[in-house]
Amino acid sequence: MTTRIPVVENILSANDRIANRNREMLDQLGVYAINIMASPGAGKTSFILKTLEALNGRLKLGVIEGDLATSIDAEKAMAAGLPAVQINTGGECHLDAVMLADALPALPLKDLNLVVVENVGNLVCPANFQIGTHLNVLIASIPEGDDKPYKYPSMYRGMQVLIINKIDLLPYVPFDMDYFKRGVEVLNPGVAVFPVSCKTGENMGAWVDWLVKKVNPKNKG
Amino acid sequence: MTTRIPVVENILSANDRIANRNREMLDQLGVYAINIMASPGAGKTSFILKTLEALNGRLKLGVIEGDLATSIDAEKAMAAGLPAVQINTGGECHLDAVMLADALPALPLKDLNLVVVENVGNLVCPANFQIGTHLNVLIASIPEGDDKPYKYPSMYRGMQVLIINKIDLLPYVPFDMDYFKRGVEVLNPGVAVFPVSCKTGENMGAWVDWLVKKVNPKNKG
Repeated sequence: MTTRIPVVENILSANDRIANRNREMLDQLGVYAINIMASPGAGKTSFILKTLEALNGRLKLGVIEGDLATSIDAEKAMAAGLPAVQINTGGECHLDAVMLADALPALPLKDLNLVVVENVGNLVCPANFQIGTHLNVLIASIPEGDDKPYKYPSMYRGMQVLIINKIDLLPYVPFDMDYFKRGVEVLNPGVAVFPVSCKTGENMGAWVDWLVKKVNPKNKG
Repeated sequence: MTTRIPVVENILSANDRIANRNREMLDQLGVYAINIMASPGAGKTSFILKTLEALNGRLKLGVIEGDLATSIDAEKAMAAGLPAVQINTGGECHLDAVMLADALPALPLKDLNLVVVENVGNLVCPANFQIGTHLNVLIASIPEGDDKPYKYPSMYRGMQVLIINKIDLLPYVPFDMDYFKRGVEVLNPGVAVFPVSCKTGENMGAWVDWLVKKVNPKNKG
């Protein structure tokens, strides 16, 4: 006689469960959330500030800034008039779902339709941690070089929209756009791509038009 | 009557023990090793190739390239005539001492006086892992921005020499050199700093003169 042993499969990690809970909570409140990832210095904070400017009031947004140690970025966001929360990871190389769960209640979520999360500057580790947002935004930048999709494939595979920042520097650095885009296409076919300059504001309009459609604001406030 | 219990303190982690062993092995062979760390796209591989050029035969070097997935960098080093080994970390965000221990024997160490290790592009995680080299070299780059020492303190604390690359881009991007250097000085007082351009070759001579003195070649070969 054989005894059947009940097996409970642990399909989701603790992190992923909490990520799902974050997303459900945001959905109930009608808030869309995006997770901005990039190398250090690709221009994440500038991109958030330029997005605010280009939105010109079409969305009500709040910001959660992830950083190892300082609150430099949250201060910049607050100076621009945004509700902002700083997560200091204490040296951890990525945000995780628990950190987001702790930070979200510090924003006035009922008054917002978009939460922008700036992850720790890192082109490797954040790709492995869902946090509970709806969209992964990857910012590449021209001076980083055209080989990054080939060298950091998990990050390029895990994003749903790609911003190519600092196109104003194209005349000054070697960057083969075709080679770069071929690398992206192999990993993430058909992904939306927006080449922009946060310095000059070039093409930010196309990005925010796309974003507004994604968010589909519920006409809050 | 009390019994004294012998306590063996585990002072060093397994990684650090292997790192020490790597360094001892290199010392016995008269080989100096440097660990090059930076954000993705700061110019690590270009810096190695420009260092080779500026050395103009004064040192015999070999290269170990760390990357998540490809062998793009090792191919570039080999094309420049360098003995080169590629470590693919399989997604890991840093090199560790075991990876270096595995890679070192693939280089002709008896014929070399310098091994250059290029770590994975990451401004967070590699700072936490000794690999067994003699010197940590950090490459910052102008388009990354002037706030990086403040935002990535462990990396700036753990290096022994700082290269500031892409100074040719200073006219095109906002970068307050005084603010940057103040951040460095707080974390790492008196550290050697070399502003260079791997594109134009500017100031590479000063860096290699400094490096040759550090290596103190044993006139091999």
